[in-house]
Amino acid sequence: MAFEKVKRSENYSEWYNNLVKNADMAEHSAVKGCMVIKPYGYAIWEKMQAQLDFMFKETGHSNAYFPLFVPKSLFEKEEKNAAGFAKECAVVTHYRLKSNPDKEGSLMVDPESKLEEELVVRPTSEAIIWNTYKNWIQSYRDLPILINQWANVVRWEMRTRLFLRTAEFLWQEGHTAHATRDEALEETKKMLDVYAEFSEKFMAIPVIRGIKTENERFAGADDTYTIEGMMQDGKALQMGTSHFLGQNFAKAFDVKFQTKEGNLEYVWASSWGVSTRLMGALIMVHSDDEGLVLPPKLAPIHVVIVPVYRSQEEMLSIAAAMKPLMAILKSSGYTVKLDDRDTYKPGYKFAEWELKGVPVRIAVGPRDLDSKTAEVVRRDTKEKSIVPMDDLYTHICTLLLDIQENLYRRAEQVRSVKTFLADTWDEFLDVVNVKEGFAMAHWDGSAETETKIKALSKASIRCIPLDQIQEEGVCVFSGKPSKGRVVFSKAY
Amino acid sequence: MAFEKVKRSENYSEWYNNLVKNADMAEHSAVKGCMVIKPYGYAIWEKMQAQLDFMFKETGHSNAYFPLFVPKSLFEKEEKNAAGFAKECAVVTHYRLKSNPDKEGSLMVDPESKLEEELVVRPTSEAIIWNTYKNWIQSYRDLPILINQWANVVRWEMRTRLFLRTAEFLWQEGHTAHATRDEALEETKKMLDVYAEFSEKFMAIPVIRGIKTENERFAGADDTYTIEGMMQDGKALQMGTSHFLGQNFAKAFDVKFQTKEGNLEYVWASSWGVSTRLMGALIMVHSDDEGLVLPPKLAPIHVVIVPVYRSQEEMLSIAAAMKPLMAILKSSGYTVKLDDRDTYKPGYKFAEWELKGVPVRIAVGPRDLDSKTAEVVRRDTKEKSIVPMDDLYTHICTLLLDIQENLYRRAEQVRSVKTFLADTWDEFLDVVNVKEGFAMAHWDGSAETETKIKALSKASIRCIPLDQIQEEGVCVFSGKPSKGRVVFSKAY
Repeated sequence: MAFEKVKRSENYSEWYNNLVKNADMAEHSAVKGCMVIKPYGYAIWEKMQAQLDFMFKETGHSNAYFPLFVPKSLFEKEEKNAAGFAKECAVVTHYRLKSNPDKEGSLMVDPESKLEEELVVRPTSEAIIWNTYKNWIQSYRDLPILINQWANVVRWEMRTRLFLRTAEFLWQEGHTAHATRDEALEETKKMLDVYAEFSEKFMAIPVIRGIKTENERFAGADDTYTIEGMMQDGKALQMGTSHFLGQNFAKAFDVKFQTKEGNLEYVWASSWGVSTRLMGALIMVHSDDEGLVLPPKLAPIHVVIVPVYRSQEEMLSIAAAMKPLMAILKSSGYTVKLDDRDTYKPGYKFAEWELKGVPVRIAVGPRDLDSKTAEVVRRDTKEKSIVPMDDLYTHICTLLLDIQENLYRRAEQVRSVKTFLADTWDEFLDVVNVKEGFAMAHWDGSAETETKIKALSKASIRCIPLDQIQEEGVCVFSGKPSKGRVVFSKAY
Repeated sequence: MAFEKVKRSENYSEWYNNLVKNADMAEHSAVKGCMVIKPYGYAIWEKMQAQLDFMFKETGHSNAYFPLFVPKSLFEKEEKNAAGFAKECAVVTHYRLKSNPDKEGSLMVDPESKLEEELVVRPTSEAIIWNTYKNWIQSYRDLPILINQWANVVRWEMRTRLFLRTAEFLWQEGHTAHATRDEALEETKKMLDVYAEFSEKFMAIPVIRGIKTENERFAGADDTYTIEGMMQDGKALQMGTSHFLGQNFAKAFDVKFQTKEGNLEYVWASSWGVSTRLMGALIMVHSDDEGLVLPPKLAPIHVVIVPVYRSQEEMLSIAAAMKPLMAILKSSGYTVKLDDRDTYKPGYKFAEWELKGVPVRIAVGPRDLDSKTAEVVRRDTKEKSIVPMDDLYTHICTLLLDIQENLYRRAEQVRSVKTFLADTWDEFLDVVNVKEGFAMAHWDGSAETETKIKALSKASIRCIPLDQIQEEGVCVFSGKPSKGRVVFSKAY
């Protein structure tokens, strides 16, 4: 392939950027910080969306759509939330362009179209949604409200990175309203579990479920639950968050309901989201120096067949021989592609599909037809086998299941190898800076210590694991008492 | 139901607004001109999306995503397009808010965050997409590009109406690039056919396929193809457009490719879109004074079962009796809902599901269990039948097919009754103002006459039908010669 390859071991960050670009996933656009998601990348995102959407609906949620714009006066109502996002807001101030009298063929903002009130392009939709829920909720009969929205959001970023950090990104945001604290908290945890299940079973990425510290909490939440994954370079990536919002938004927007007993109470809330960041995680956890490696459950193409031929006649006989296999794979729900382009040689095609992470590649030439076999290569291990034509279907089905499992196992092993107990400050620095991994360390529970550790090591507390073991210890930094370890790591 | 009903015959426009609101489809938001699409309305839109997306993919298109923002300098490159949308653009000028020192707890736009170049919130994406395609296209091997995007767009509107005209709306926009004029034109027409098929087979709305006059053409297109539907009040609604863009955007963005023969030529283009306006058409064509009427192929719920009971015991035995039917309907791909809410009486439920347009309603009480029958009511004609339990499944399947067809027939009949030949100016005014329908009339082909007719009658040329009959005649307004009739009507 005509592009520069970079090895993970040489420059992980450049390897990532190159891969995203060369595998036709996404690219930077003419708009600073905004990305173009290319068809191949978008096809993976669509697979993710479809599965998540299914899981949201199975857990009782419906989709809806709320405005892109949030009037400033609504935006500022929940003060913590507003303060958290104010510094990264795209603001619409005018609603018309006009001809620029000083420059022919050019347009300028029409000063007469200045809006009375500025509109914030949503960085998240709690404000506009809670202002709407206010009118939907009068009585306990109106609860719960279980709504999800698929949307674009904008958070102005100076330093951007495709999928991981962009000014505009695509996401889903769930916003639920409940009659009781318990119910809202249960919802918050349930959706964290949905995210964890999606990550582990579909993305093949093991995650740690935990709670964020106050420093790292969503602005406006009482508690933020998170799933944290480990990338191949040992850094963490926050893959999804589910927020217990308490009554904060209900109070800010004055949303009360009449209880069964006839009292007026504030509504309880949750919100939860995952975004196109997940694409970044998918790439960073599984891919290798040859390109993308995709778990079969999220691969837009499961199997590619590359015919090896010299004449058009040979091509046609190979295509004919593969037809029944393609039909039966298709009817089993797999996407199969016969790469019959005559503008490229087989070697080029092998490299291209490897780069694009297609889980299984089949190569068939005239001699294979004679011997009634085919060469099958699995993308994850690059292992080759010669398989009798009659066994191909079963072989491929088993292989796809095996690749899915193998990717998860491999990711789990990387994480296990790069996770360390750190009991002293030196050990801690060694883990996060030299070994480059997760440090399971005691922390005294104070925001002050957390901030100092981050300033000195660049490692943050990723979460307090939900399955944290109660263990007496002393803070790795302050020496003060602690009752359990938390997960520290550098992060994306 | 606790809401005010308005009859179509009394006030069509108020009937529409009431229906959209009462059937829980959509509502106005706190942001001027922007709507909230509520879960029930969004579920219908999702059904539309799924079918259209399937049809786009079947015709070889892939989805992708391009930025929400268009830098002003790109926006203005294709001058006609820019001029066409300049007056309705939301413009982002700043990227940060800060605390307002004069008002505690309040935010203000940070003047230091002024953007060097303003960003237009996309009203349509040709500019940003062609600026991207420029880098994707070097040779004929890179063509065609067949991409669709599902997105939100913003066109600032002063007078808005839910679904029909809102500042922000949801849509899909296809953007294709081709090596030849013929291929681009073929694509333009193919996608018009896809829209027409979707409208007729899924929305059950007959449409006229035609070409827009120059006055009504998309800004930046060489030709705009359209499908026009007739609403129950005799007005037209433009349901989808497919634009042949010629080489206009290729020239504006300097997108050339090397032909097979080695020459450098500008690329040919099409773009095509349908939006949440289709929701408005769906409502206006089929619904009645009792509420929404939905074609089964786009109904989120196909069958609702309302148990009529006095005791919880009775309820449970009805639910148990209905279980096998629900299972078999579900396995046939239908959505069935058992309305077992004990907070509402059957009469209330009947009215609610009627309002929401569920195609088939089944009512079952203890006596029905005894006689092994159920009452089935179809939403379109309100016809009731008593059906033996054993026949229910077959009966419902047939009924759903029949409702789909009947809605189409009914809409076709309304259109046929309200379509008139108009040969004189008096006849013309009578059709568009008194009879209120489509006037098939001769027109001299000049933009001037078209403009005058619109000014005097408020009727515009909806399209020059693709199946226009060649017929000598004289223009209904100017008396000048004409070779065929065009479709005039008032329109949404």
